[in-house]
Amino acid sequence: MQHITPPPTKKLAWVIGPYQEPIATVNPGETFQVSTLDAFGNKIESAKADLKKVITLPYVNPCTGPIYVENAEPGDTLSVRIENIAITRDYAVSCIIPEFGGLCGTVFTRVLNEPLDQRILIQRITKQGIIHDPRLKIPPIPVEPFYGTIGTSPAVEAISTLSPGFHGGNMDAADVCPGNTVYLPVNVKGALLFIGDGHAAQGDAEVCGVAAEVPTTGTLTVDLIKRKAVGTPRIENSEFLMSVGSARPMEDAARIAFYDLVTWLAADYGFDRMAAYQLCSQVARVRVANMVDILYTIVAKFPKRYLIKR
Amino acid sequence: MQHITPPPTKKLAWVIGPYQEPIATVNPGETFQVSTLDAFGNKIESAKADLKKVITLPYVNPCTGPIYVENAEPGDTLSVRIENIAITRDYAVSCIIPEFGGLCGTVFTRVLNEPLDQRILIQRITKQGIIHDPRLKIPPIPVEPFYGTIGTSPAVEAISTLSPGFHGGNMDAADVCPGNTVYLPVNVKGALLFIGDGHAAQGDAEVCGVAAEVPTTGTLTVDLIKRKAVGTPRIENSEFLMSVGSARPMEDAARIAFYDLVTWLAADYGFDRMAAYQLCSQVARVRVANMVDILYTIVAKFPKRYLIKR
Amino acid sequence: MQHITPPPTKKLAWVIGPYQEPIATVNPGETFQVSTLDAFGNKIESAKADLKKVITLPYVNPCTGPIYVENAEPGDTLSVRIENIAITRDYAVSCIIPEFGGLCGTVFTRVLNEPLDQRILIQRITKQGIIHDPRLKIPPIPVEPFYGTIGTSPAVEAISTLSPGFHGGNMDAADVCPGNTVYLPVNVKGALLFIGDGHAAQGDAEVCGVAAEVPTTGTLTVDLIKRKAVGTPRIENSEFLMSVGSARPMEDAARIAFYDLVTWLAADYGFDRMAAYQLCSQVARVRVANMVDILYTIVAKFPKRYLIKR
Amino acid sequence: MQHITPPPTKKLAWVIGPYQEPIATVNPGETFQVSTLDAFGNKIESAKADLKKVITLPYVNPCTGPIYVENAEPGDTLSVRIENIAITRDYAVSCIIPEFGGLCGTVFTRVLNEPLDQRILIQRITKQGIIHDPRLKIPPIPVEPFYGTIGTSPAVEAISTLSPGFHGGNMDAADVCPGNTVYLPVNVKGALLFIGDGHAAQGDAEVCGVAAEVPTTGTLTVDLIKRKAVGTPRIENSEFLMSVGSARPMEDAARIAFYDLVTWLAADYGFDRMAAYQLCSQVARVRVANMVDILYTIVAKFPKRYLIKR
Repeated sequence: MQHITPPPTKKLAWVIGPYQEPIATVNPGETFQVSTLDAFGNKIESAKADLKKVITLPYVNPCTGPIYVENAEPGDTLSVRIENIAITRDYAVSCIIPEFGGLCGTVFTRVLNEPLDQRILIQRITKQGIIHDPRLKIPPIPVEPFYGTIGTSPAVEAISTLSPGFHGGNMDAADVCPGNTVYLPVNVKGALLFIGDGHAAQGDAEVCGVAAEVPTTGTLTVDLIKRKAVGTPRIENSEFLMSVGSARPMEDAARIAFYDLVTWLAADYGFDRMAAYQLCSQVARVRVANMVDILYTIVAKFPKRYLIKR
Repeated sequence: MQHITPPPTKKLAWVIGPYQEPIATVNPGETFQVSTLDAFGNKIESAKADLKKVITLPYVNPCTGPIYVENAEPGDTLSVRIENIAITRDYAVSCIIPEFGGLCGTVFTRVLNEPLDQRILIQRITKQGIIHDPRLKIPPIPVEPFYGTIGTSPAVEAISTLSPGFHGGNMDAADVCPGNTVYLPVNVKGALLFIGDGHAAQGDAEVCGVAAEVPTTGTLTVDLIKRKAVGTPRIENSEFLMSVGSARPMEDAARIAFYDLVTWLAADYGFDRMAAYQLCSQVARVRVANMVDILYTIVAKFPKRYLIKR
Repeated sequence: MQHITPPPTKKLAWVIGPYQEPIATVNPGETFQVSTLDAFGNKIESAKADLKKVITLPYVNPCTGPIYVENAEPGDTLSVRIENIAITRDYAVSCIIPEFGGLCGTVFTRVLNEPLDQRILIQRITKQGIIHDPRLKIPPIPVEPFYGTIGTSPAVEAISTLSPGFHGGNMDAADVCPGNTVYLPVNVKGALLFIGDGHAAQGDAEVCGVAAEVPTTGTLTVDLIKRKAVGTPRIENSEFLMSVGSARPMEDAARIAFYDLVTWLAADYGFDRMAAYQLCSQVARVRVANMVDILYTIVAKFPKRYLIKR
Repeated sequence: MQHITPPPTKKLAWVIGPYQEPIATVNPGETFQVSTLDAFGNKIESAKADLKKVITLPYVNPCTGPIYVENAEPGDTLSVRIENIAITRDYAVSCIIPEFGGLCGTVFTRVLNEPLDQRILIQRITKQGIIHDPRLKIPPIPVEPFYGTIGTSPAVEAISTLSPGFHGGNMDAADVCPGNTVYLPVNVKGALLFIGDGHAAQGDAEVCGVAAEVPTTGTLTVDLIKRKAVGTPRIENSEFLMSVGSARPMEDAARIAFYDLVTWLAADYGFDRMAAYQLCSQVARVRVANMVDILYTIVAKFPKRYLIKR
């Protein structure tokens, strides 16, 4: 099985775009392995690290990629089935970053209040789970790994790996996990897939801006749906059809997600569009994936048990 | 057991405020029954009803109340344990209302596009669940009743029963359900509790603006936490501590909810505030309760299994 | 000329609603005087005042009213021509309020950062203008008085005097000034007009949350436009037609304002609605009235010189 | 004088980023001419054009650039003084684009309502001004040309020319006009300046999404402020210091703009930061530049007459 590893530091991907040379090529139907650094480039090894030195924007959240997918052409959809995500370190990192997060002033929600102080936890990962902070007498947190960042190149833009969007990217959606298939748009020849930001566990909304950050080695299978485009990322498993919206304000993220879900049900599953809208209002589930990134991300989910029987 | 019924039409509560005479009085610790009309005042009986005639703002979502709670004084917290919610009609109502909902222009998100057409479903409720639309071959939707609206009077404001807020109100949070306890602020003598908007089932976000609307008879137990105030509604069950934020844009609703959750963990459960923030970022769950009302509502949930052992 | 003065403290209006007894009655066409306290109830007399004691929510921004307008009935529009606003004190007050304002965490945009410190300026008003702070060598600020708050009662709601909305209220729009006419909806018999929050000068957006706060005596002429309703406040002078939108997020305030302006041009001035939309995109002016209140306020302005000649 | 013209179609800039070869080089202090196509690449020549064919995202709003500025290094500020903007066509274009604009559903504010119909005006530019629509009897609109788009390359991102941001870009701020100087960040060697989207006139907020779109030839003088960085674009003329914020929701754009203005007054003009905040609340002016682009843009303005005398 092919194993794609992060490029050397100088060639790490800090943007998701069409301007970097592919670091590997895969074929439709191929199962391969890919390794990722954590969101801080594996640079935090101690609770005393100086975040100002570690986080030098825009050089945060390095992704592994671009991965060229043979035969992928604009207008296709790339499917990425996540077979497995192995965590390749015995600790995770959690931080409070002074001007980043859901409950503090940021570069967008600018305030004159003093910034928060930095705070770092180096979290041991044991067989029982993640030890959040040994000073707190609480049970270990179960390991539920997923990719915070997965995306394909836009046509001409190069988007920060910190941002989610119509191309996928830094969605921080825990549904990008083993057993699930992610559908991403193909905007350029070869699709150019980027992956990173492994999380060993994350709360909905990722409220402080950081999850349990880890490097990973994942096993993925890519495939193509030819000549059928998705307008925004979709995710599927045996239980749910899921549409992902990323925008600000958060209600626009929800609108994008639900609009796509309703449209999907109408186009592929025989629902009248207004009927699907009304049904979603009674059975849909929603995940707030992140309330901290450059755009917020909402996942709208339709339980497949309510698909029309044929 | 006392049974409080909706007042005659002329005295129905269209606002949650201190200006109406109580329709009943209960004692702390008392278990009582309360009946509610559906959000349309039980006025929709056919899929051919004319919504323009049924929905004449501000006379929508009539609540049963105010219910006076003996001994409640400003600065206390009112707890309302929901023992049971019985649905008192054999059908639910679902609609698309032309300028209301998550995926259309509204009186706030004003657009020049043509409004949507109205659409009404009269939904039979059977032992197997809610028949969403007999024309669609999908399984019945399980009945999971809750109150869309529950709140206490502000000090001087009278807030539309269509709006949620720091006083509770029209949160449309499915966590206001049997088995759970809701904590609401006491701002006036007697607290003045209002209840309404029963839902037989609802999707997260209530995307089209309407759930499965039903009249109900519920069984509630109220109690007081003296001289301890909540700043925003809280909900609790055996599994979760939950804080409810209502605001626009939606990220502010999430901020209010998480800020309160973090503050609660610090004040009552021995967490350092920043530690609680970081822990929530790894274990919290979030419900988008509504993306359609005058304010949006988010419920931030902390799993009690992570409370510090003492 | 009738002179309406603020009621005694116990009867001051902290909400704009239908539940208070009128303190005066005026006739359509009548010119009268009205006096207002400043937003702090005239309670700040020194830079060393303790804002925690002065600002005890919801008892802030007392308005003079309700003023009953004879013959006003729901569905009419109340016009209020502002003839003059005299400032009745030789100083204005400016403050930074710890959790209120445009560049700090607030009760809605909740953050874990430490709140700002309070800061008060007692600002002398001279013939040359307002002395912002004698310690700063800058010219006096010209006195340009207006009412921060003017509104009519909703049908059943009682809205905090701190909030703007479809009823007018705390818009903090400098266009509510001498020479201009404000149009407000009539939702209840007698209209019930409330006025307060005099500002001697204010920057667009009122960024710190407080302007140059003053008590006033104004001269107003009210009139009625029978059986013609406005959906949101409008303002007019010789130069502009102005529509006022109040909402969060701010873009919704702008949408409400522009939607109303376009609708107004179509209904009363012979424009095709789409033509008006396109023309506004080339000639409209916009004022950000406030970015600090419970809702934000935007004024969209159409220069009357572009009205169709007939 | 050097005259920089748009590159051939295949090399037009659709993103502002570091990945394109410079089309010209200028020296600090140099005055030069630059020509720009209109936002539609000069492709609309008739009111009957098919916008679906003209606007094929992301190939909209072509800019002239990148222009390499000798000696510019990351950490510097690029100043661009706009000496003149000549309109190089005898007509302007105005349109309603079906899913773009301030008062309609868009790709972000997704709705299920039917999209608006397209509408195009070809607007003659005469000595008296712009003839908005000869079918409307209104006076000509004065020509007040400015650049909708001006920006410098980010370090690694390539941002759509449709988006404004910390790099400048598609701000649609009428203050980018002759007589004013724009300050932009230098993030890469040579700064890489891009210019486009000439407007012959525009209303505040550009509510329908399109102004009076024209090709131009401008005269600019660039210069460098070495080793002094701006965090967001600034503009200056004899009357105002101006800071530009671009974000969603709109209040965040206003926060960025005012935060920068307050910070600027403190860093360069001797104000205490809190004093500057309070003063802005009494004297600032605000322009809503756009409420339609990928990010909204707000310009916060401080009248220089209130600068401290020294």
